[in-house]
Amino acid sequence: MELTKIMGFKPRNIGYYKKAFTHRSLNKKDEEGNAINFERMEFLGDAMLSAVIASHLFKEVPGGNEGYLTKMRSKIVSRKHLNELGRDLNLIKYIQTNISKDQFGVNIHGNLFEALIGAIYLDRGYRYCKKFIYERVIEPYVDIEQLEGTVISYKGLLIEWCQKEKKNFSYEVYEDTGIDELKHFAVKLRIEDRVVAKARATSKKKAEEKASKRAYYALQNKIEPS
Amino acid sequence: MELTKIMGFKPRNIGYYKKAFTHRSLNKKDEEGNAINFERMEFLGDAMLSAVIASHLFKEVPGGNEGYLTKMRSKIVSRKHLNELGRDLNLIKYIQTNISKDQFGVNIHGNLFEALIGAIYLDRGYRYCKKFIYERVIEPYVDIEQLEGTVISYKGLLIEWCQKEKKNFSYEVYEDTGIDELKHFAVKLRIEDRVVAKARATSKKKAEEKASKRAYYALQNKIEPS
Repeated sequence: MELTKIMGFKPRNIGYYKKAFTHRSLNKKDEEGNAINFERMEFLGDAMLSAVIASHLFKEVPGGNEGYLTKMRSKIVSRKHLNELGRDLNLIKYIQTNISKDQFGVNIHGNLFEALIGAIYLDRGYRYCKKFIYERVIEPYVDIEQLEGTVISYKGLLIEWCQKEKKNFSYEVYEDTGIDELKHFAVKLRIEDRVVAKARATSKKKAEEKASKRAYYALQNKIEPS
Repeated sequence: MELTKIMGFKPRNIGYYKKAFTHRSLNKKDEEGNAINFERMEFLGDAMLSAVIASHLFKEVPGGNEGYLTKMRSKIVSRKHLNELGRDLNLIKYIQTNISKDQFGVNIHGNLFEALIGAIYLDRGYRYCKKFIYERVIEPYVDIEQLEGTVISYKGLLIEWCQKEKKNFSYEVYEDTGIDELKHFAVKLRIEDRVVAKARATSKKKAEEKASKRAYYALQNKIEPS
């Protein structure tokens, strides 16, 4: 099952995952008349995500005070960021719904991502939940220096240069799982239709950043102010 | 050590607990110059508390939607409630500080309670953290029906009756741990200087409520509208 590639381990009780992808439009109810859909699971997933990120930041940034840790966590679990995570994994593909997928707003991606975390917690407990969050959120996306804005983005640098030099550029991203346990993304960075760099990572963002960095060093003489 | 009675298990690394009771006024720093005090641990404890309460509510109230679960959690982890929990356990007794304990505001109790949860997480992981929260928050304090306001408080009923009947009453609460693994509280409820009920529980609130309920049934004929 494809979900196994996304999670990196096998589900035990598939029922939780079915629920995590059931939209309220199906109007499903259990025997007691309780609604069956992913909305309650979002609540649970959000709480687990916040806890795991809190513990990561606590250990990772021993010099950060309470205010700093709170601010950094907000950046990581922002709606925008969660939507990006859910969209990259194409979770919407698994949704069970009575309404057309086009009608969903952008938040559906983040909501499904949170619900999936909730399902993992119910299915396999905190330890697997933490493992999933490390593999799908922290390792691919959480770069403290970049969140702080103290490190520049190579993608930003590259785009700036292309615009200044009036060069066409494109990032072609595709899923490239290969034999890996986890789903991966590959990217080809083209400038003026020539592939100048390739990269592969567990998130689109990271793959793009990696390719940009490679291109940056390859083109360094051209990019640096003369 | 007394902390063992509060937690119900032995600490492994006492260093975490020392930190959880170190006030910033001591101005302690580690070798890298990072501040050593309980403020960062509050952040961690708060996150763990929120996660455990979320999971409890999720399982306990299958009919509650996201909004309901969020509201109930806010009630449970409210500042007022956390202060009550920390004060009942007399955590302030363990604080290491350079300023006088009288100078602390009421929030010190809740802050220490959160920091203690953070220390437990670091020392023994999520499982013990959850166990502690069940024993010290959920079992003694979390009564969903009472939180919803759908069940009346026996203490409230009793006080109302005493006031109407112009009777003096008092709740005498004291720590009464005995041979239990966990710290307990005992209460004597006096009306007109006569002990009308006694009770014992893991929180002051629960002990008072238990004694009130016993007194309520003992005095039922007098309390119910004639």
